[in-house]
Amino acid sequence: MTDSNSSDSVGLVTPQVLHFDEPLTLRSGKVLPAYDLIVETYGELNADKSNAVLICHALSGDHHAAGYHTTEDQKPGWWDQCIGPGKAIDTNLFHVVSLNNLGGCAGSTGPASINPETEKYYGPDFPVVTVRDWVKSQVALSDRLGIDRWLAVVGGSLGGMQVLRWAISYPERLHHAIAIAAAPKLSAQNIAFNEVARHSITSDPNFYEGHYLEKGTYPKQGLMLARMVGHITYLSDSAMRAKFGKTVADFEGQGNNFGRDLRSGKLSFGFNVDFQVESYLHYQGERFSENFDANTYLLMTKALDYFDPSVDYQGDLSRAFAKSDCKFLLLSFSTDWRFPPERSREIVNSLLKAEKDVSYLEIEADQGHDAFLLPIPRYIDAFSIYLNRAHKEIIANAS
Amino acid sequence: MTDSNSSDSVGLVTPQVLHFDEPLTLRSGKVLPAYDLIVETYGELNADKSNAVLICHALSGDHHAAGYHTTEDQKPGWWDQCIGPGKAIDTNLFHVVSLNNLGGCAGSTGPASINPETEKYYGPDFPVVTVRDWVKSQVALSDRLGIDRWLAVVGGSLGGMQVLRWAISYPERLHHAIAIAAAPKLSAQNIAFNEVARHSITSDPNFYEGHYLEKGTYPKQGLMLARMVGHITYLSDSAMRAKFGKTVADFEGQGNNFGRDLRSGKLSFGFNVDFQVESYLHYQGERFSENFDANTYLLMTKALDYFDPSVDYQGDLSRAFAKSDCKFLLLSFSTDWRFPPERSREIVNSLLKAEKDVSYLEIEADQGHDAFLLPIPRYIDAFSIYLNRAHKEIIANAS
Repeated sequence: MTDSNSSDSVGLVTPQVLHFDEPLTLRSGKVLPAYDLIVETYGELNADKSNAVLICHALSGDHHAAGYHTTEDQKPGWWDQCIGPGKAIDTNLFHVVSLNNLGGCAGSTGPASINPETEKYYGPDFPVVTVRDWVKSQVALSDRLGIDRWLAVVGGSLGGMQVLRWAISYPERLHHAIAIAAAPKLSAQNIAFNEVARHSITSDPNFYEGHYLEKGTYPKQGLMLARMVGHITYLSDSAMRAKFGKTVADFEGQGNNFGRDLRSGKLSFGFNVDFQVESYLHYQGERFSENFDANTYLLMTKALDYFDPSVDYQGDLSRAFAKSDCKFLLLSFSTDWRFPPERSREIVNSLLKAEKDVSYLEIEADQGHDAFLLPIPRYIDAFSIYLNRAHKEIIANAS
Repeated sequence: MTDSNSSDSVGLVTPQVLHFDEPLTLRSGKVLPAYDLIVETYGELNADKSNAVLICHALSGDHHAAGYHTTEDQKPGWWDQCIGPGKAIDTNLFHVVSLNNLGGCAGSTGPASINPETEKYYGPDFPVVTVRDWVKSQVALSDRLGIDRWLAVVGGSLGGMQVLRWAISYPERLHHAIAIAAAPKLSAQNIAFNEVARHSITSDPNFYEGHYLEKGTYPKQGLMLARMVGHITYLSDSAMRAKFGKTVADFEGQGNNFGRDLRSGKLSFGFNVDFQVESYLHYQGERFSENFDANTYLLMTKALDYFDPSVDYQGDLSRAFAKSDCKFLLLSFSTDWRFPPERSREIVNSLLKAEKDVSYLEIEADQGHDAFLLPIPRYIDAFSIYLNRAHKEIIANAS
């Protein structure tokens, strides 16, 4: 563990599993009779429970958003850059709640869990869950925690979509909706990439139509490919050029070699890995394939594809926001080509049309979609100032 | 066959296989002792052989660029939009030569050919060929055809890279170099997509380390995935939105549903295909996987990755063009995100620095990289006018 004792870390954290016996009717019509949600919290809940912030995770995220589980951990939670004492989501001010979504594979009930009715893995029989279903289960979690109204619900990417759903379906349950690097719905290109990922998993001979755990195996190659494709869409072209290329002089001044650094200094003239970007993708794909459940990956990508809150309003997103009663902060990143700034502006335009209170900032950043996970000063500053002001308005003024 | 008799079709064409006994030393150092090239020609060669135009194909192209092989053919050659009587490459004026590159799978010697030394399929033992090697073999073809100097060497995408190599290595052998939707070298993101395609093929259990033909099978799923990924990069986001989405009213006027048309009108809540864009990708992938050799796909993507004519000049592409003695036409398309206009402008800048005669046109087109295959009026007009003028300058003036 690198810095669990540092003054801006939440330090050691222990997740907690909460069991829910109330049946959850899903958007598909199926019913989940009972389920577990695994949760972490950081920072103290105040007496009137008014300082709670909910974190919604993205495609491959989980409940472990900040701090360390053991003193041996090499890396902190996935959003440690933003959550901790003095950080953007300041745990000196806020009680932060982070969960693993239903269908996940990090401790909440999902395809890799045992179905109590059959005493076998759910596997492919776990129902398809949508953003709407997740938020419904997060409302059940809020009730269990006694949190009537979140000071803020916050998330990036698919997490941002959950934030929008909160604002639309449960207007009385949040003061602020903060959606980062999000989109109002996927485009055909987004869906196409997801389908490539799914097809790579389902066509892996070790997938066994989703029953791989029963067979004692898993679709490693399929998951690896899915992650490789995904990873390309998380990084910008410019980020890849910078990450995998030396800077060289070019006609127009200082350029770089377009990320063409070789792995071993020369071409192989074979089908081995030649360029560093290839090694990097292999490494990312392999590591992911060993730590993530394939059925969960399928579920998460379908939740992305299905998300479109305008669908109940003849495609008019502004009407979806009609009853929303929170303030909105939208953040986007200039080189994000998965969910580019124009997608955030669509949300902003719909909110303006619905006459809602919305702040929007487009941040210049080279890192593509992944920027929302990174310590980019203007991003962190804006995020921090917004939440600190929200704290003052809601808590300091109330006391 | 739809329109082989129409006045702007080259009609029925018959490919011809040419055998070359002169050994070809490849960039890898390996030697191909002998090889075949399959060729088609359209239009008459004039007496002094000065009206010949060479077509270089892209990743999955072949020699069949125009016309029909039989009266039953439903579709003409891959560049029929541009080659024919009165078309951009006017077969009333030009003698057009089109070949399948070495390593291909449409009749030229490649991995799916029988190695005369072993009497088995070359398979994975076919050597890695580069753009430089292709052009070397195309020079041998020119010699065989008695064409000392091409009026123009023309190609799109990977074909455009061959055009650049011609201008660099054989300056006395062409008058005009026309490179469409090309790039001076791939970026890390381009390479990353190619590596995903290769990994999907090589990790298919039916790949058998490239010996699938001996085993009587082929890596269908791997090829299908490779094509699906490739296809996403050929189409623009806007093209996909238009192709797979109905136009609907939105806040800012007429928008569309982002290409989210459903296949059956409702969500499946399963892992079947939900959106039309998914069906389309499946269809494209399946069709391709049944008609293309997997080892050839690996070779073609490596040729793309390896292409970088600046590598012999400390990364300065302008120095690579120092001896070029032809005029250049570069064309790019506004929504091409595989090889965007900025990549063509890099080539143009290097040519300007090298004080070469270069024309450049960036064409507004929604269709992404695929635009170079499509009948976009401004593109076809510019292409046509340029070649007609070249014909006047070189042939009409000489006679």
